[in-house]
Amino acid sequence: MHTEKITIDERANLCFGCGPDNPYGLHLAFTVETKDDDTDPEAITATAPVQLDSFYEGPPGHIHGGIVATLLDEAMSKLNRPFNVLAMTRHMEIDYLRPAPLRQPLTLIGRHLRRDGRKLFHHAELQSQDGTVLARAKGLFIVLDPALIEAAKAKGLL
Amino acid sequence: MHTEKITIDERANLCFGCGPDNPYGLHLAFTVETKDDDTDPEAITATAPVQLDSFYEGPPGHIHGGIVATLLDEAMSKLNRPFNVLAMTRHMEIDYLRPAPLRQPLTLIGRHLRRDGRKLFHHAELQSQDGTVLARAKGLFIVLDPALIEAAKAKGLL
Repeated sequence: MHTEKITIDERANLCFGCGPDNPYGLHLAFTVETKDDDTDPEAITATAPVQLDSFYEGPPGHIHGGIVATLLDEAMSKLNRPFNVLAMTRHMEIDYLRPAPLRQPLTLIGRHLRRDGRKLFHHAELQSQDGTVLARAKGLFIVLDPALIEAAKAKGLL
Repeated sequence: MHTEKITIDERANLCFGCGPDNPYGLHLAFTVETKDDDTDPEAITATAPVQLDSFYEGPPGHIHGGIVATLLDEAMSKLNRPFNVLAMTRHMEIDYLRPAPLRQPLTLIGRHLRRDGRKLFHHAELQSQDGTVLARAKGLFIVLDPALIEAAKAKGLL
């Protein structure tokens, strides 16, 4: 099995999750690993270290539930890259299992589950350093039609 | 039917969604309306105007999906207040129906659906100015045991 490891070099952008140019953003830096064995449900993974300060607080001392959702959405969206498509989140379900602490090193892991035409199904977890799952998500992403993207760009919508 | 209207005066806090003291936060200001008719599924609502700048970008020109999740989570969490309880998000499901634009006035509306013991079920929508639903969510919130909160405070965990 061949393993390809890519550290995503984002184009300069303001993306709240991963844009290096956004002073308010999370500056997530993912490593995407692709194994060329598409029968393996863990063939594509996206991993990032996370350690957040008080600006992302929800319950005292803990990460805001919406920011946890942002982390999980980001981990899943990075799994679209190896397909060479642009895809948007259509549906996301999140289970909040334990409060996620601020100021502690955590790990974000996304895993591709399956593709069905334009539908990409992914999974993600936010884990503490000892591997305890703090939150997990399932996501459905829809691959965008490249012709529609070009039309939107022509209209100045993108 | 008596209608009570409360504009929440948050204690000074860093909450990413509604904390007035968080320079990175969304500074959401909710109006919570309570009607004393608990047979009405719309008896408790939480509403806030939203207009976000480029710091919360996901797709070019549009709000990050994680920030949309944050908005919906915030709208639902504000519905816990009239019950005089502290409750945490346990599960949230989000449908992303249309991209939510940056720099345009939008409306966030949360509605309480039902209570079953310690479980509070809520619903929320992000709408454009003409009422088009851009995203919607269902949430399950679990009421925290006050004794556990006191114990956590005593241990310095909260």
